[in-house]
Amino acid sequence: METEFTRVAQEQLRTLVIQVMQKLGETEENTHIIADVLIAADLRGIDSHGVARLGMYEGFIRSGVIHTNVEPKLLTETPTTALIDAGGGMGQPVSYRAMNMAIDKAKTYGMGFVTVRNSNHYGIAGYYAMMALAHNCIGLSMTNSRVFVVPTFGRDAMLGTNPIAVAAPAGKEKPFVLDMATSTVPFGKIEVYNRLEKPIPEGWASDEDGVPTTNAAKVIQNANSPVTRGGLEPLGGNGELLSGHKGYGLGLLVEVLCGVLPGALYANLVYPHTEDGKPLPAGLGHVFGALRVDAFRPVEEFAASMDDLQQRMKNSSKAAGQERIYIHGEKEYEQIERRSMEGIPLNPKVLADLQKIAKRYHVEFRN
Amino acid sequence: METEFTRVAQEQLRTLVIQVMQKLGETEENTHIIADVLIAADLRGIDSHGVARLGMYEGFIRSGVIHTNVEPKLLTETPTTALIDAGGGMGQPVSYRAMNMAIDKAKTYGMGFVTVRNSNHYGIAGYYAMMALAHNCIGLSMTNSRVFVVPTFGRDAMLGTNPIAVAAPAGKEKPFVLDMATSTVPFGKIEVYNRLEKPIPEGWASDEDGVPTTNAAKVIQNANSPVTRGGLEPLGGNGELLSGHKGYGLGLLVEVLCGVLPGALYANLVYPHTEDGKPLPAGLGHVFGALRVDAFRPVEEFAASMDDLQQRMKNSSKAAGQERIYIHGEKEYEQIERRSMEGIPLNPKVLADLQKIAKRYHVEFRN
Repeated sequence: METEFTRVAQEQLRTLVIQVMQKLGETEENTHIIADVLIAADLRGIDSHGVARLGMYEGFIRSGVIHTNVEPKLLTETPTTALIDAGGGMGQPVSYRAMNMAIDKAKTYGMGFVTVRNSNHYGIAGYYAMMALAHNCIGLSMTNSRVFVVPTFGRDAMLGTNPIAVAAPAGKEKPFVLDMATSTVPFGKIEVYNRLEKPIPEGWASDEDGVPTTNAAKVIQNANSPVTRGGLEPLGGNGELLSGHKGYGLGLLVEVLCGVLPGALYANLVYPHTEDGKPLPAGLGHVFGALRVDAFRPVEEFAASMDDLQQRMKNSSKAAGQERIYIHGEKEYEQIERRSMEGIPLNPKVLADLQKIAKRYHVEFRN
Repeated sequence: METEFTRVAQEQLRTLVIQVMQKLGETEENTHIIADVLIAADLRGIDSHGVARLGMYEGFIRSGVIHTNVEPKLLTETPTTALIDAGGGMGQPVSYRAMNMAIDKAKTYGMGFVTVRNSNHYGIAGYYAMMALAHNCIGLSMTNSRVFVVPTFGRDAMLGTNPIAVAAPAGKEKPFVLDMATSTVPFGKIEVYNRLEKPIPEGWASDEDGVPTTNAAKVIQNANSPVTRGGLEPLGGNGELLSGHKGYGLGLLVEVLCGVLPGALYANLVYPHTEDGKPLPAGLGHVFGALRVDAFRPVEEFAASMDDLQQRMKNSSKAAGQERIYIHGEKEYEQIERRSMEGIPLNPKVLADLQKIAKRYHVEFRN
């Protein structure tokens, strides 16, 4: 059962996002940031976080969960740190500014660490970490999210998929870009297996009793139930045998840094409502860090060692049946090359969604 | 087959370590730091990193791999960062000073990040991260190590077990202390299964073809062969199905920060030798970070949220057959209470080793 994909040039998609976000009340500068973060995900092959999300953002803006045209407020600041209130606005514009602030602080003081609260879904974590690369900094970005992940020995989803992204520049090799959810797999993978009616591998999710399950439909049904039960396993899977407690610990670390530290919502965070049922902003938190390479070593030396580290990995012996060892970010850089040339493949459902949104906002969408 | 443990009071062990390290040429201040880091591991129940390692350190000092009475050199410094050359000395004293430096920088500028090169095994990563707690800072500590871990799709051990430790203060609850190797399990666990002649669970290690194995003896034999083949799996196991590439990415991240950034050795690091076979220092690297909580929120508010986060986790529903959900560090704090009272349990082999060392250095060891 092959799905027919339609390839659309990135510029068509960029224009669509910019125009729709403009109609939804975003400032011109913000529309460009939002579009760039979404298209970056599509170019990198992270389809779940690209233009496929435009409908989600649009729905949240219409229902009042996300506000547009919000001016973020700087709440506290030291030479190296800052806390920003996003005012319930889109996650991308505030995150872009927060990361630039971290980079500026790193340039002056060696490093910077900026936290954000009262925010929303910010797209791919890697985008912000990678902003540091052009400044010869190591970049860090994390966010919490809606709960999907069950703590070790628990039954209910209590943690977001809570990604950690770190980017470090290299020389001739591509930058190292780690961008990973702290669950074994993202929720989207469960949905893919469900559509294909395939059992999921043991270690991806647990059922309403907190017991490992291979039933994708059940996991999705549980996730959508008002009483959240079961959910994704942390990296390392169920229990402690394969060290699921480490993935749980990484997820908890992200809640500490993104939820507790900036005073955002955390853990068993549901989309909050007013008493009369009006939705309130999601209250997510993010952190952004930058560390100047030349505070430690000349950039050229660092870059040469990064190349050497990567080459040692890639040139080391392969496991039986394997032909290639990858560095994190490498597959995505290859996708960018391909998709920049050939366009971004959209499945029929995503394409239909985008066409519907374009029509609703009287925006031209050529594909 | 129950092993008979002898319980020894921590002060006896502390005195032994101090006196032996003194005889080996360490300064008085350094002997106290080394003893404190080792005893902290034993008190926390991390037996593999406590006094059981005294013999390893002693052997490395005698063979010239580790130098004693070394004055670390500050190579570069900015308001928030520093790079220190450990001069091939013991890992603990330089790490203790580097972490204090990071904390001092955090107090003045909001955060600090100090890297170390030309160092040796530093004990438990968590010790240094926890030093931040008394200063109401979030602490970070990482180190690379001798290679044990195979990259995803690879066959040869190319990465250290590369632990990541983060500690964050709380209020009424215990601090959050994550201290995790980025492999699924530490090498010591393979040795335990080998001694018990039990097959190891699939997902812990791969054989000389890079294929998952349950044969503990084979993994140990491979690790000790001059051509390292096979080894521990990264967190997430073999291949990408359960996201072993994420554990591999975390291990690589530690090599970037601890190996590349300070200019230490990295990846496929073997204990280096001179041309005529004289061993050289291990050339390990570490990083230490501190982040001031009150740069973001009043400490009391942060502590109250940390308590709430922990309670939400611990009070959430348990999986079938489970009675308790833990916070990272909680089990270790309970061990400290027990072992402070009852003494530290030493197995016969460790006890015999310590007695031998005590005798060699004419040090009294009452147990």
